[in-house]
Amino acid sequence: MPTPSEFTGLQLRSLVKPGGELELSLVSVTTPAPAEDEVVVRVEATPINPSDIGLLFGAADLTTAKRSGTAASPVVTAQIPERLMKSMAARVGQSMPVGNEGAGVVVAAGASPAAQALLGKTVALLGGAMYAQYRSIKADQCLALPADATAADGASCFVNPLTALGMVETMRREGHKALVHTAAASNLGQMLNKICIQDGIALVNIVRKPDQAALLKGIGAKYVCESSAPTFMADLTEALVETGATIAFDATGGGKLAGQILTCMEAALNRTATEYSRYGSTTHKQIYIYGGLDTGPTEFVRNFGFSWGMGGWLLFPFLQRVGMETAMRLRQRVATELKTTFASSYSKEISLAEALQPDVMAAYGQRATGTKYLINPNKAVA
Amino acid sequence: MPTPSEFTGLQLRSLVKPGGELELSLVSVTTPAPAEDEVVVRVEATPINPSDIGLLFGAADLTTAKRSGTAASPVVTAQIPERLMKSMAARVGQSMPVGNEGAGVVVAAGASPAAQALLGKTVALLGGAMYAQYRSIKADQCLALPADATAADGASCFVNPLTALGMVETMRREGHKALVHTAAASNLGQMLNKICIQDGIALVNIVRKPDQAALLKGIGAKYVCESSAPTFMADLTEALVETGATIAFDATGGGKLAGQILTCMEAALNRTATEYSRYGSTTHKQIYIYGGLDTGPTEFVRNFGFSWGMGGWLLFPFLQRVGMETAMRLRQRVATELKTTFASSYSKEISLAEALQPDVMAAYGQRATGTKYLINPNKAVA
Repeated sequence: MPTPSEFTGLQLRSLVKPGGELELSLVSVTTPAPAEDEVVVRVEATPINPSDIGLLFGAADLTTAKRSGTAASPVVTAQIPERLMKSMAARVGQSMPVGNEGAGVVVAAGASPAAQALLGKTVALLGGAMYAQYRSIKADQCLALPADATAADGASCFVNPLTALGMVETMRREGHKALVHTAAASNLGQMLNKICIQDGIALVNIVRKPDQAALLKGIGAKYVCESSAPTFMADLTEALVETGATIAFDATGGGKLAGQILTCMEAALNRTATEYSRYGSTTHKQIYIYGGLDTGPTEFVRNFGFSWGMGGWLLFPFLQRVGMETAMRLRQRVATELKTTFASSYSKEISLAEALQPDVMAAYGQRATGTKYLINPNKAVA
Repeated sequence: MPTPSEFTGLQLRSLVKPGGELELSLVSVTTPAPAEDEVVVRVEATPINPSDIGLLFGAADLTTAKRSGTAASPVVTAQIPERLMKSMAARVGQSMPVGNEGAGVVVAAGASPAAQALLGKTVALLGGAMYAQYRSIKADQCLALPADATAADGASCFVNPLTALGMVETMRREGHKALVHTAAASNLGQMLNKICIQDGIALVNIVRKPDQAALLKGIGAKYVCESSAPTFMADLTEALVETGATIAFDATGGGKLAGQILTCMEAALNRTATEYSRYGSTTHKQIYIYGGLDTGPTEFVRNFGFSWGMGGWLLFPFLQRVGMETAMRLRQRVATELKTTFASSYSKEISLAEALQPDVMAAYGQRATGTKYLINPNKAVA
């Protein structure tokens, strides 16, 4: 058994200053020797998810980003519009680590058998502070990857896979029989398509552009509606009539899309209605907003009766609600299908220092389809 | 036992024609002799609730209303804007009776003991088609009023009282400890205040104008916020901190109010938060939209995290959900407190023919506080 030792490495930090400035930096952090039930992981792959970008950039205006410091230890500052500082109040002055999930190699382990068993293995982790060269964590929070999986293969094996599985699970628990998903060409959306095809669930995919529609059709999606098409509302209603979907998961949040989905669900339900009900269809229609790709206001016309709900949906509260047994069942499915259903693709692998280059920040900050970035904190810094 | 006989009288009808015209009229309807378990009620008081106005006027533009026919048998027509005809599709061509609830005297009864027991009594009814001189109904759907109660006393004893009680019941069932209510100076809002004072529940009342605030304070309301005040958001947040209210019932529907309430609930919860959570407070915040006083779009800025829900709420599905026992308990409370907690006030009593005068329609169509109208279908027609 090797003696556990300290590891010193860089960690990315996001700080909102009281004056309205965001400061991103790399700080040197020493990870102490692991406790008995802990391991130290050398992080080699950690994705930039939309949920990370919120914490990373806060409400800053990235067009004002300026870089200083050195190439190996850069500092980026950007201005936060004054009207948005209120929403940042709770984090002002706290230098926050970033990065929900990642994967890497266990380089030190505490004395417990569980920790020792992981030494030298490639593991996936969930728990924050992954944009760092080293991360200490409890052994039982590590998911040991199959022998043929790289850190990049396992880097995204929690947030997107469990979110996609959570949507299907929520659909079943709330008594619906088919799903609607927006921003459907995303990595998450592609996974959801694979799950639904495998499980025989009808899925209505909503995308903005023809190339996104083509991408989804290429992986077998049956129902794809383009929100930019003049026939969008009619197309969506038709797909809802065919599938009977009465629950949707919306990643955009802002704009009119969530309301349009409810409108089309109501229209689809009324196609088969036999008598007039002044309060609309009595079938409950539900939209869960789980992201904020469109940060603008949400707006809807209430032309879908009174049997509807809209609300926030997040992975962690969902996992708590369903309980350990279900959570473990979902996690096991991810491990089993890591290189098939739950395979992620990345457009670029970057270092921690590269993640703080304004042009690179602008690129991944767009959250556009097909531009998902993977950070390798131990990539040689340029 | 008197022989049950037929009764012929006027009934108000609302008809949407395929060409985009609303036609309101009074038709002569013969109510057949009651079946064994039925009674015939001579309706003497039936309120114009917001929920009736939706069915009565549909999507018509009342500024285009034209009256024809005779004084005793008037016909009113009004245009429905073309873009709104889609929402009327399911009722086109159906001549619909109107009027959710009312009260009157039982003038004929079937042979069953339950029906016979009601003969000559003043009863309250729920079930539609109350804007009529006679209404036949099952005996077990009648609520016999106390001996000292008039038809006017009992005319509104279902919709508003059960809705107000339903809000309190929903609050308890969903684990909240205090309530927010909008359009709070309405008849319904005043009832809700009385219930909450009696039951020791903190209620935050939101009104538009100072005179509405004064009205509520006059009946003992502790928390009243004026949405037109420049300090509205701060006032509301303060009231939410003091009461801990995390559920709201909104009668307006359109505009920004529902979202502002969620924003203030989140701000109130964050006052006591000890650490920054990027996803906002984990306490669930809920808004139920139960009316549409503002028929415009609903708009909100999602600055209240992910633990929130918004949805439609209606009395009848609520009563079905909670089951017969709870429904009977609520109904019993209404009967017991009919002349105190659940007393309604009306600004005017009108005949069926007067209800179809364009100037009168414009008055009650505003749904303004303190302008609630009561129809007496058996009032001598002018």
